[in-house]
Amino acid sequence: MFNVKIFVTYKESILDPQGEAIKTALHRMDYTNVNQVVQGKYFEMQIKHNGQDINEEVDQICDQLLANVNTESYRFEISELVEG
Amino acid sequence: MFNVKIFVTYKESILDPQGEAIKTALHRMDYTNVNQVVQGKYFEMQIKHNGQDINEEVDQICDQLLANVNTESYRFEISELVEG
Repeated sequence: MFNVKIFVTYKESILDPQGEAIKTALHRMDYTNVNQVVQGKYFEMQIKHNGQDINEEVDQICDQLLANVNTESYRFEISELVEG
Repeated sequence: MFNVKIFVTYKESILDPQGEAIKTALHRMDYTNVNQVVQGKYFEMQIKHNGQDINEEVDQICDQLLANVNTESYRFEISELVEG
């Protein structure tokens, strides 16, 4: 069993209006030392090992469902859960 | 300067309809080995050190703006950016 954490954010060239809105709000709340804010999506899933390459499977899941590859980029972390 | 990564997810007792919908979609796409899906929000921000305790400041930002403390929980990772 694998525990997978996936982070999806806008590509650098794409405007991130939510991140900008949060930064503006934080400045209004006197957190003026916050310089840059990026908002993205976060997914956590548990995947049962079925013989397939887990990295490849997560890549496919991101490409096909979780991320819009035109505007978003993703990265993920995989850790194996050892069942005792 | 600190780089801060914040993860906001529903508390365990709260229904996560988006996560459920993604799991259903993945099963329909034949990724039947995906067992559990949680969707959350992800924020990345750069915060300038201003003498205040950075952990405390990020806690306040999460409580006051980024998370709904009634239904969501958050965790964060802070790394210091050393400017050479």
